[in-house]
Amino acid sequence: MYRTHTCGELRISHKGNEVTLSGWIQRLRKLGGMTFIDLRDRYGITQLVVDEKATEYLKATVSKLGREFVIQTNGIVLERQSKNNKIPTGEIEIDIKSIKVLNKAETPPFTIQTDTDGGDELRMKYRYLDLRRETVRENLVLRSKMAILIRNYLDSLDFIETETPVLMKSTPEGARDFVVPSRMNPGEFYALPQSPQVFKQLLMVAGFDKYYQIVKCFRDEDLRADRQPEFTQIDCEMSFVEQEDVLDAFEGLTRHLFKEIKDIDSGVFPRIPYAKAMDKYGSDKPDTRFEMLFNDITNIAKGKDFGIFNNAEYIVAITAKGAAEYSRKQLDALTNYVKRPQIGAKGLVYVKYNSDETFKSSIDKFYDSTDIEKWANQCQAEPGDLLLILSGDKFETQKQMCELRLEMGRQLELIDKTKFNPLWVTDFPLLEWDDDTQRYYAMHHPFTAPKPEDIELLENAPDKVRANAYDLVINGVEIGGGSVRIYDSALQSKMFKLLGFTEEQANSQFGFLMNAFKYGAPPHAGIAFGFDRLVSLFAGLDSIRDVIAFPKNNTGRDVMNDAPSQISDEQLKELFLRVELPKD
Amino acid sequence: MYRTHTCGELRISHKGNEVTLSGWIQRLRKLGGMTFIDLRDRYGITQLVVDEKATEYLKATVSKLGREFVIQTNGIVLERQSKNNKIPTGEIEIDIKSIKVLNKAETPPFTIQTDTDGGDELRMKYRYLDLRRETVRENLVLRSKMAILIRNYLDSLDFIETETPVLMKSTPEGARDFVVPSRMNPGEFYALPQSPQVFKQLLMVAGFDKYYQIVKCFRDEDLRADRQPEFTQIDCEMSFVEQEDVLDAFEGLTRHLFKEIKDIDSGVFPRIPYAKAMDKYGSDKPDTRFEMLFNDITNIAKGKDFGIFNNAEYIVAITAKGAAEYSRKQLDALTNYVKRPQIGAKGLVYVKYNSDETFKSSIDKFYDSTDIEKWANQCQAEPGDLLLILSGDKFETQKQMCELRLEMGRQLELIDKTKFNPLWVTDFPLLEWDDDTQRYYAMHHPFTAPKPEDIELLENAPDKVRANAYDLVINGVEIGGGSVRIYDSALQSKMFKLLGFTEEQANSQFGFLMNAFKYGAPPHAGIAFGFDRLVSLFAGLDSIRDVIAFPKNNTGRDVMNDAPSQISDEQLKELFLRVELPKD
Repeated sequence: MYRTHTCGELRISHKGNEVTLSGWIQRLRKLGGMTFIDLRDRYGITQLVVDEKATEYLKATVSKLGREFVIQTNGIVLERQSKNNKIPTGEIEIDIKSIKVLNKAETPPFTIQTDTDGGDELRMKYRYLDLRRETVRENLVLRSKMAILIRNYLDSLDFIETETPVLMKSTPEGARDFVVPSRMNPGEFYALPQSPQVFKQLLMVAGFDKYYQIVKCFRDEDLRADRQPEFTQIDCEMSFVEQEDVLDAFEGLTRHLFKEIKDIDSGVFPRIPYAKAMDKYGSDKPDTRFEMLFNDITNIAKGKDFGIFNNAEYIVAITAKGAAEYSRKQLDALTNYVKRPQIGAKGLVYVKYNSDETFKSSIDKFYDSTDIEKWANQCQAEPGDLLLILSGDKFETQKQMCELRLEMGRQLELIDKTKFNPLWVTDFPLLEWDDDTQRYYAMHHPFTAPKPEDIELLENAPDKVRANAYDLVINGVEIGGGSVRIYDSALQSKMFKLLGFTEEQANSQFGFLMNAFKYGAPPHAGIAFGFDRLVSLFAGLDSIRDVIAFPKNNTGRDVMNDAPSQISDEQLKELFLRVELPKD
Repeated sequence: MYRTHTCGELRISHKGNEVTLSGWIQRLRKLGGMTFIDLRDRYGITQLVVDEKATEYLKATVSKLGREFVIQTNGIVLERQSKNNKIPTGEIEIDIKSIKVLNKAETPPFTIQTDTDGGDELRMKYRYLDLRRETVRENLVLRSKMAILIRNYLDSLDFIETETPVLMKSTPEGARDFVVPSRMNPGEFYALPQSPQVFKQLLMVAGFDKYYQIVKCFRDEDLRADRQPEFTQIDCEMSFVEQEDVLDAFEGLTRHLFKEIKDIDSGVFPRIPYAKAMDKYGSDKPDTRFEMLFNDITNIAKGKDFGIFNNAEYIVAITAKGAAEYSRKQLDALTNYVKRPQIGAKGLVYVKYNSDETFKSSIDKFYDSTDIEKWANQCQAEPGDLLLILSGDKFETQKQMCELRLEMGRQLELIDKTKFNPLWVTDFPLLEWDDDTQRYYAMHHPFTAPKPEDIELLENAPDKVRANAYDLVINGVEIGGGSVRIYDSALQSKMFKLLGFTEEQANSQFGFLMNAFKYGAPPHAGIAFGFDRLVSLFAGLDSIRDVIAFPKNNTGRDVMNDAPSQISDEQLKELFLRVELPKD
């Protein structure tokens, strides 16, 4: 038996017990003739003491120990002289009788501590050592805890966990599928799922009624900052339901997680229609932890000699409370911030509403204080506030102002990091117009149902049609989304036509599912949450990487074991493949 | 709202209630002026009645309904005249006021009933309809139920569920890995995991202490009868444990499943060392639901003029109780059975121990009754019994006799299908000798630890070394297995040498894990259960296919959606690949 207790278990009530512990050496300190050892395992740290009076053999053993050695030790639980109330085992220490070295350790390339000296690259290469750090491990423990809470919650609602294939069919539009050559079917390929969408809809046709799965999905995309080629979804679908039923179930799930993990009662989640979210926050994933709402001043700001505003489709202002004292330097920095290529604004107009009730703006020569007072009123600004104004193409300007609002939220410290503001964004547009290809695309996917009351707009004003689609947003992060599906084949045909599919194209891409629908498809709707994202939000992390045990870097590489890698000619031959690298 | 209740929910206590139900039409019957409809959903079947006195509109609607139409209906719960006690809703029926057709259905290609008229091929092609059949769906519901029971059990033991990568590194020996070309890393490939073995051992190095995952694994093998290219494992690893701790935890898990699913108290699982299992059952996965143990009669059967026995390494007999009356035809059939190429025996010797205490055997001319009585005694045979005897190379003969024993168990109806006999097979040999390549192979894998007391045999009698490896077997089916791992690098080096690896080869194949071990590897051990196999055993099925929602056929094809398939030249080009099919 390697241990009688874990390193996180012993308390003052164990005083006098003889115990056996196993673990890693976190730290060794000599103090006079005594040696103190912090022994670590997943459950905690326990202090070991080797006394001056210890045997020479024990002292000799101890003298050869080093950081991260794995040892087994035996001793008596003592009450500590100087207690450490920062750790649960801080009232006791172990008076060591024997130590057995289970395994030696080379000096790790970085310190195994919460504040490590290891850089990102190094920690990823030695991920198995990085995972020893309490902070990193705790993220993975949280992930495990959330997974079981989610499963039990959905199980209690009668959801059936059903595994769908990982080796599936590559779809014609799936240029960014990962593909898997089949040795037994020469020249043919499977694809890894970008989502189990088709299968979950088939399960509804099959009468499974309520399906869920916490499932790996794959996307062979150029990885932006916080994407992974393989990621995990909480994937769900329900039959004989309306939008309300889905929101109910998954608001319940989310509330359950907040309660169990954070002990937060998150109440009823607000709902914001997409149009309002864009108007007030310039985003379909608004961070509502602070106000600073958008004010559309297009109508009242036009008509003077300021050409930029006069030519703008849209002029929008936010009120930064109490920021009228911003210096020239601060304002220049803000201007530079919005002009960065990632944001792309052409400039920034500001109005200081001074505490003496005068105005000072960057466009004083075009507008007098009567004009500007109107803006201030519209923006509910008060003396001491700063108005920040952007203008231009509506959609672009909304996105720019959204970034500026978030930056001001950070600068003015309006974002309470301990707060969680979940909300539903609803009533998404069904379609998006694409200027390049001059056609509509489904904003969600081609099976998303329009709102019944908007169906009559499909013919003549398709861009006005709203979808029964919804997203869960928490603190400005899109956690997931879904939609009510079209199950009526006539409506589906109309949709395909709108999306510019010929009948042939529709058949080749979706014929398989359409065919299944011929045998009696129930009304159904679904949702998927990004599990990595949800865990990282609960863990208070900005990146999903630290809630994934073995993540890949942003070129899709596992730097720890150097994957992907070349395979042998023999393997290629068995797969009937030849690699043809581009010539430099 | 599509329904107030499900189709499995209404009871006599709901009598008089107005309800709304939705579901599929299982059956339509006309009786006089009345129409009876069986409405089906996942939860059950409810009988709907459309009365003679119904409105013409309702009658017209009903006349257009067909099998598998999806309808929503509204009516009053009535007590049935003639109750059906076979279904939970059998005491009531619904007096229908209105019916709305939610979706029509074409006539399904086979009947959606427990006893369907659809052949295997057809049901696989229309798997989404096959899944509507109660028997098939119940297998998947069982799977879901077992999954959550397993997760909660392991969670209660402090196992951390940790997802390991699906896109991993292809290993040199992994000729049968599925590989995934990386677009972002031209000419390089990921591999899909055959098991998360390396990662779970890394998690132990990382101090995760207890890891589990219910995880898809992949093997690009020629599929035998009951294999799938993707399959699901319950994969576990534990630190600071010995074999006993692993067996304890997973015997507990298995017992928990038997209790919860079958209400069976399966007690303490017997343990059989590999050597004994081979001696007594000729198999490392013995079906112990019936006796008919092997009797080694090598020593007492040699020395007469029967050359076949004299030249045999091994002569083994089983006693078929009460089968002395077997006819010539039956005995010939048994001989043909063991001579089939899949079994490969050269012949079968029988001895009838007649009820008059005389013997009649196929080798009467070589042995007198005194000789044969010795055999009968050795086999504890009694008058009325039949002895069946095979001889030859020991290992081959054991395998052949194992098949014959199982066949006799079936013929004599000794196998109680309601019985579950779990057992552990332990003490597997560490190594297997391969005649073709003239070297030893690891029976389990190269990290499997030898039994400490056998380590001294490694040098001179490696084939005698037993491993700390174990399998869980239930009813002759191998549910899973695992081993204690080597964590000592000196012992590991010795193992690699024994397995004929040069240092270079060992480094290239396992260097990565060996490297991690340098930083302090704890003693650890693990196990993996085949989840598909476990569920099919609990479901009483012979095949794993029916516990998989969307299985593949034995050429690895999904006949439902025709995967794998060709991909576009554009996709291939993006991946820097060219397909080179063999010329016929």
